[in-house]
Amino acid sequence: MKQYNLCFLGFGNVGRALARLLVTKSPDLREQYGIEWRITGVASRRIGWLYNDAPDGFDIPTLLSDHSLTDASSPSNGIEAWLGAARPDVVFETTSLNPGTGQPAINYLRAVLESGAHAITANKGVIVHGFNELNRLAESAGKHLLFESAVLDSAPVFSLFREALPAAKLRGFSGVFSSTTNVIIETMEAGRSFEEGLKTAQDLGVAETDPSHDIDGWDATVKVCALASVLMNIPLKPDEVTREGIRELSPRKLQAARAAGTPFKLLARAKLGGNGKLVATVRPEQISASDPLGNVRGTSLAIHFELDMMPGLTITSHRPNLQSTAYGMLADFINAVKT
Amino acid sequence: MKQYNLCFLGFGNVGRALARLLVTKSPDLREQYGIEWRITGVASRRIGWLYNDAPDGFDIPTLLSDHSLTDASSPSNGIEAWLGAARPDVVFETTSLNPGTGQPAINYLRAVLESGAHAITANKGVIVHGFNELNRLAESAGKHLLFESAVLDSAPVFSLFREALPAAKLRGFSGVFSSTTNVIIETMEAGRSFEEGLKTAQDLGVAETDPSHDIDGWDATVKVCALASVLMNIPLKPDEVTREGIRELSPRKLQAARAAGTPFKLLARAKLGGNGKLVATVRPEQISASDPLGNVRGTSLAIHFELDMMPGLTITSHRPNLQSTAYGMLADFINAVKT
Repeated sequence: MKQYNLCFLGFGNVGRALARLLVTKSPDLREQYGIEWRITGVASRRIGWLYNDAPDGFDIPTLLSDHSLTDASSPSNGIEAWLGAARPDVVFETTSLNPGTGQPAINYLRAVLESGAHAITANKGVIVHGFNELNRLAESAGKHLLFESAVLDSAPVFSLFREALPAAKLRGFSGVFSSTTNVIIETMEAGRSFEEGLKTAQDLGVAETDPSHDIDGWDATVKVCALASVLMNIPLKPDEVTREGIRELSPRKLQAARAAGTPFKLLARAKLGGNGKLVATVRPEQISASDPLGNVRGTSLAIHFELDMMPGLTITSHRPNLQSTAYGMLADFINAVKT
Repeated sequence: MKQYNLCFLGFGNVGRALARLLVTKSPDLREQYGIEWRITGVASRRIGWLYNDAPDGFDIPTLLSDHSLTDASSPSNGIEAWLGAARPDVVFETTSLNPGTGQPAINYLRAVLESGAHAITANKGVIVHGFNELNRLAESAGKHLLFESAVLDSAPVFSLFREALPAAKLRGFSGVFSSTTNVIIETMEAGRSFEEGLKTAQDLGVAETDPSHDIDGWDATVKVCALASVLMNIPLKPDEVTREGIRELSPRKLQAARAAGTPFKLLARAKLGGNGKLVATVRPEQISASDPLGNVRGTSLAIHFELDMMPGLTITSHRPNLQSTAYGMLADFINAVKT
């Protein structure tokens, strides 16, 4: 049995869901994996850099209720001091995304890995802009950089390739990566407006803070780049992806396409050309119900892989939610520390 | 770099496809995994128990062309003598299935594990009838018992649970596990006869030797039992599954269902009831296009998982073929020996 010091860098909805999940799964972690844990550090823009060196770390109910946090813990000053005081074995990073640079999360995770902790992130900007550097750093430190929840919520695509598909070569992939646009399109197919669709996506909690990231295809574009970087070892950047959002789609056009059995979806694609160059697109496309991605509905996400070793493999995650996103980080934690 | 002695127990279509794949992937195995290999034993009902202790083992072109096999190698007498002479590190077992007992494959694999080799099987009868015993034996011998191709061809479901979904609990699953019945149903939906559908499935090479295993739902039933045994730790036996085949489905009934948007499929289901008891069925059911299994067509296979940690996860393998089935065994080999 080993006790791990856990730290949360960012403590919004996903971080809180993960803290709750750790509590729920404590008996399984202990019995199946010999894992004990305590939370020794929590940092966010709102609460600052807090650590707690009590034997049990932070009291979780207090942490989740958010009252008197500063009474129960001590502030430190910036990432380095915080890591030094909280002494994490594992840091869960869920700070907000800067899709253009991946910062400041990349700098944070560099410090995390240099401090000797495993780095687990739900931040796709980090993967697009910092994967190669951080992965090298993790390898040289003998630590893990894991990010199963960063791209397709909890759908286990990175561990699938790492563990289940050895020596298989990925030739391309396609996917429905944006629940917001899926929800907007389906709302308009039902004869309602774009704005009503966006409102529905926001009510469901799936829209990005700035919904134009979803609507203009930026969000899906960043995901394509993250997947290409990790799974195909091709450091694709967002401006190399041909991108078109869903603003030009009218209810009439969408209804006609749906009635014809070939509805529109915002599809993301990446495919190796004969010249070895990756061609990547994010744009509305009509697909038929018999397409592997043909019945991805609502907030569900899916990815279809073309591999040298099998004709096609599709992974569909149905209506992922906060808990399933948090679970992806819990799975990363277990995989990082299990022997 | 380590050289592994490989042995083939059963050498039909899958075994031969695996031998070809090993040749194709040799450079990747060497460069990515430090794996060298030679084939030191091949056994089947037709050719007997052959071994070859030449430095390079069997000559692969000779092995695949099947001429003068006995000139190039020596016969031994039964599994024990063969294992003693061929000294395998890994044995690939692809003998023909006895779904009622899993024999003689279970006895063979017991001998394989006792001889100190990893056991890799594509035989679902082994999993249904021998998983617990063989798995304990493998653990005590410090060897691996792996079987990624035994149930859903190459769809990586066992490694997915082993590596990618730690601490997640499976509450139930459903799936389209029988390409033969899928092909027969689709042929009849197109207005042609049951016999034409069966002929098509046989021409595609997906029908079992005795097609009544597929048509009466036995094949899917054995798969349900294998999945429940491994993924849910519930040793379900075929006679505990409520089973109904597709013989009662007429073209007229199938066409009407397809026209209504809720086509029939032979669906396999297993679900934990409130009393903790597993309820399992294999029978024709109508499903809608929006169902996770709604667009599984032709020879494709799919499984949908219900987990405590995520609302639903579907894996679809599109038109698996001999090479992809062989790839599942190659992946098992790599996972068994990688450090």
